[in-house]
Amino acid sequence: MLRTNTCGELNLDHVGQTVTLCGWIQKIRKLGGMTFIDLRDRYGITQLAINSETHEEFAKKVEKMGREWVIKVTGTVTERYSKNKNIPTGDIEIIVDAIDVLNESAIPPFTIEDESDGGEELRLKYRYLDLRRNPVKNNLIFRHKMGIEIRNYLNNIGFLDIETPFLIRSTPEGARDFIVPSRVSPGEFYALPQSPQTFKQLLMVSGYDRYFQIVRCFRDEDLRADRQPEFTQIDCEMSFIEQEDILNTFEGLMQHVFKKVKNIDIDPIQRITYADAMRLYGSDKPDLRFGMEFVELNDVMQHKDFKIFNEAELVVGVMAKGCAHYTRKQLDALTDFVRRPQIGAAGLVYVLCQPDGTFKSSVDKFYDQEDLKKVAQKAGAEAGDLILILSGKTEKTQKQLCELRLEMGKQLGLRQAGVYKLLWVVDFPLLEWDDETNRFYAKHHMFTAPKPEHEALLDTNPIAVNANAYDLVINGTEVGGGSIRIHNRNLQNKMFQILGFSQEQADYQFGFMLSAFQYGCPPHGGIAFGFDRLCSVLSDTDSIRDFIAFPKNNSARDTMVNAPAAVENSQLDELSIQIKK
Amino acid sequence: MLRTNTCGELNLDHVGQTVTLCGWIQKIRKLGGMTFIDLRDRYGITQLAINSETHEEFAKKVEKMGREWVIKVTGTVTERYSKNKNIPTGDIEIIVDAIDVLNESAIPPFTIEDESDGGEELRLKYRYLDLRRNPVKNNLIFRHKMGIEIRNYLNNIGFLDIETPFLIRSTPEGARDFIVPSRVSPGEFYALPQSPQTFKQLLMVSGYDRYFQIVRCFRDEDLRADRQPEFTQIDCEMSFIEQEDILNTFEGLMQHVFKKVKNIDIDPIQRITYADAMRLYGSDKPDLRFGMEFVELNDVMQHKDFKIFNEAELVVGVMAKGCAHYTRKQLDALTDFVRRPQIGAAGLVYVLCQPDGTFKSSVDKFYDQEDLKKVAQKAGAEAGDLILILSGKTEKTQKQLCELRLEMGKQLGLRQAGVYKLLWVVDFPLLEWDDETNRFYAKHHMFTAPKPEHEALLDTNPIAVNANAYDLVINGTEVGGGSIRIHNRNLQNKMFQILGFSQEQADYQFGFMLSAFQYGCPPHGGIAFGFDRLCSVLSDTDSIRDFIAFPKNNSARDTMVNAPAAVENSQLDELSIQIKK
Repeated sequence: MLRTNTCGELNLDHVGQTVTLCGWIQKIRKLGGMTFIDLRDRYGITQLAINSETHEEFAKKVEKMGREWVIKVTGTVTERYSKNKNIPTGDIEIIVDAIDVLNESAIPPFTIEDESDGGEELRLKYRYLDLRRNPVKNNLIFRHKMGIEIRNYLNNIGFLDIETPFLIRSTPEGARDFIVPSRVSPGEFYALPQSPQTFKQLLMVSGYDRYFQIVRCFRDEDLRADRQPEFTQIDCEMSFIEQEDILNTFEGLMQHVFKKVKNIDIDPIQRITYADAMRLYGSDKPDLRFGMEFVELNDVMQHKDFKIFNEAELVVGVMAKGCAHYTRKQLDALTDFVRRPQIGAAGLVYVLCQPDGTFKSSVDKFYDQEDLKKVAQKAGAEAGDLILILSGKTEKTQKQLCELRLEMGKQLGLRQAGVYKLLWVVDFPLLEWDDETNRFYAKHHMFTAPKPEHEALLDTNPIAVNANAYDLVINGTEVGGGSIRIHNRNLQNKMFQILGFSQEQADYQFGFMLSAFQYGCPPHGGIAFGFDRLCSVLSDTDSIRDFIAFPKNNSARDTMVNAPAAVENSQLDELSIQIKK
Repeated sequence: MLRTNTCGELNLDHVGQTVTLCGWIQKIRKLGGMTFIDLRDRYGITQLAINSETHEEFAKKVEKMGREWVIKVTGTVTERYSKNKNIPTGDIEIIVDAIDVLNESAIPPFTIEDESDGGEELRLKYRYLDLRRNPVKNNLIFRHKMGIEIRNYLNNIGFLDIETPFLIRSTPEGARDFIVPSRVSPGEFYALPQSPQTFKQLLMVSGYDRYFQIVRCFRDEDLRADRQPEFTQIDCEMSFIEQEDILNTFEGLMQHVFKKVKNIDIDPIQRITYADAMRLYGSDKPDLRFGMEFVELNDVMQHKDFKIFNEAELVVGVMAKGCAHYTRKQLDALTDFVRRPQIGAAGLVYVLCQPDGTFKSSVDKFYDQEDLKKVAQKAGAEAGDLILILSGKTEKTQKQLCELRLEMGKQLGLRQAGVYKLLWVVDFPLLEWDDETNRFYAKHHMFTAPKPEHEALLDTNPIAVNANAYDLVINGTEVGGGSIRIHNRNLQNKMFQILGFSQEQADYQFGFMLSAFQYGCPPHGGIAFGFDRLCSVLSDTDSIRDFIAFPKNNSARDTMVNAPAAVENSQLDELSIQIKK
């Protein structure tokens, strides 16, 4: 090794030792006759000290150096005169006996500091420099630890890590595939997997009964801020189990990971049905760090002349504890918030439960004190509280109130970093109807089994069929989801029919699955977690990009290597494809 | 869980317990009034017993069942009358109290036995059934364990598992890329990585100093029996190290893996230079389970009138201990062996050192007993030994004799399964010359550094330049290789020049690397192991395909899912490509 120690480990125990360190120059300072260098590596920062008078040649060498130069120094560990309590090595410094330049550095395009002066675009282009900054480095180390602990837990309970192929078959259902032209079979294409779904189910058919993989997946979708064309999934499947077994197994995984990586004992994971989640929070991924449950107000607000409420399918409110002091300005801002096009409410009704026991509302014209008292009672509001009310079509209104609830949670500081509320959302509908294409789509995916007791409804009222499908939600973010799968060939065929596949199409696309179901397919189910997402949620950040070493930008471009790029015509010729003008 | 136990764990300790098992029917036997079922799952086989007289309804149910049906049984663990010592559960059987069919099975297209009656093509098409067979299952479990132990070792010594992108930039150098058309950037393409080489080097630039990843890589090459278009690499890189540190670190990895997975303490890994390996074994990946080193015979065989030897650049032999008894027929077979077009020798000269101390040779016409004695002495042969000699151009003859040596090793039982000889081959040449394209190619890859002491030769005699490049060889198979990398921008530029890149091309293709080298790139190097290959070598098999759950066939086709396949025209339209007729 070129070094004897790292820049993060030396302390008073090492005083007097001769050590050799390698690293990057974080900072050079001159102080009287002394030159100090902060030397940085992955493990920390150590101060180097050079006496310019006794070691003039070193001081001269250093004069030519600058930020991010890579150097190697040998010296003696010495107790510092002025200690730095903020870093583990702050008690010591190295009195330099030899100093060598391993590599020079041009002046970096942005500062390599916790708070960089570089914009996101610049930092992505020079990602290899951005990766030197502590916040990014800590994220990648966090991800590494998460991976280790997830693997340990699953390995210890008998899950096998089995790799599935990346060059697979394109499926028109679901998101858009990335495809890969075949040279050997002109005119044919592989697809990159959106998930190993079919392969993990085939592994269950093969009897592997506990499978996992931390695996890259690909979706050619239009990107939002927090989406990437390639992302990593913790993909799991089990046989001879029921939904309860999966929920318990992966509750165990969460307990393990929180304990090992964050030293947090999480509470037993709450459960809520999809229907209740929509009714109480207007979301299938509610943030349970705070309550503020929805209160249906139809019965106490549809008896007067307020036409908007009377014509609404749903009148629904949330109670904001202790917010009766909200000013007109604040209430107007909330109204503006729900009126934003992304939310799209027509307006906001409020009821202030004033300290004196009277009520003030934006609809005082229609409702008297007695009416408002009933509203307050229903909402569980007391003097000093605020009730915020929306109305309209059920689903739309729930979604709007969901946004308002989250906004209020934020304003009231109820969505606290460092607090983690885990939630299983269960009993998802099997299907959803799409008006545009006039057909059913699978809510989870087309291999999800209906609840056995709902199977008969498939013929009579498919939209009413629920599935043993479940999502794991942490602090309002879906971090994973799965389902019990169909293991019966006839039921799978029926599902394909309901989704609009002809038998011919089903056989062409999924013949291998239908065939596999013929040869003794066990009951099975599974779950997949978004690894990037899980890391970000456990680190209290929104962006998955911060946990990916080399992410793409919002145009699916790697601006560092500049990919995608044009390729040589000879490559296209070999692949029997050409670019369409 | 649908079961209380697996089919591999019950023994006399469990007698009297009521258990529920799930699994596949391996076999049904009737014996007098009893029906026996061998029930199989991932963990083993357990015998179920049904008394047809007392439990007629069960016996009738079973009559309808067949091989590979999935059933669930509840019953009592009972000591067997006639024990089976070959399986861990052979002391007990389950007296069935309840039996349910979880799924039926059609008759499988081949037998699910250790020795199947199915041909390879059929087994690939129904891979999900082939995966049920013990030999394949054991391979995948072996691979899982290897993965766990490799990760544990590397994690424990501070390596970070960091994921690198799959959608990268195509590089014309090296093997052929798989490319992926971009929808967002029409006319542009991503490439799938042949290895994460550039990214892992950038991680070194970023200061991560110990990186690893077990990662899929892709090469669109014409497939040989043991190649796959997608394969898995154990990819590692370190900073602030020298070659010695890498060899030691990964010798440690091998010790760990052999101990943990095979309970074998391996010897310290021998080392040999590339030049010596070629000279002594005619191969850069010699099988050292046996000696039979090459002996150069130019000086003792080029003094007579044997024109073939006299005109040869190299006359070289191997000594086969105790093989003087080889019959004319056996010697002719060896001659035929080296004359096969794959090997291409013109002929084979032998010298039999007969038990009476005299010599017999195929070139007695040219060499007298004294000459042959000298040959024998040089070859270290004694009475009873056989010397086999080839001649011609040096490199070609070495390769031919290498094949003959391996064949003799096989014939003599010296290439023993269960014996593992690990070898570092070091000091590879940096470059190789290609007559066809009239240019140099990088022997390892273009980021490999010349040995510092050879750097000056780059200008005067590039072919003489050696690199700090190394391969790990086990039993004659290369399982990994790596090198110390260039970390200096000017040297990297010079390397690009030598490889025939114009500065413009170098900047266009590798501008990001050259740029990264400007900002403080540390000295670094690394290694990558073929994971599939490593698993196969440690299991004493030749085929990596046996260690891949869903491999492609020799036409790069997945015959199970039938990929690649045609895609919809709308997909091509979206990607701005079309198929060239």
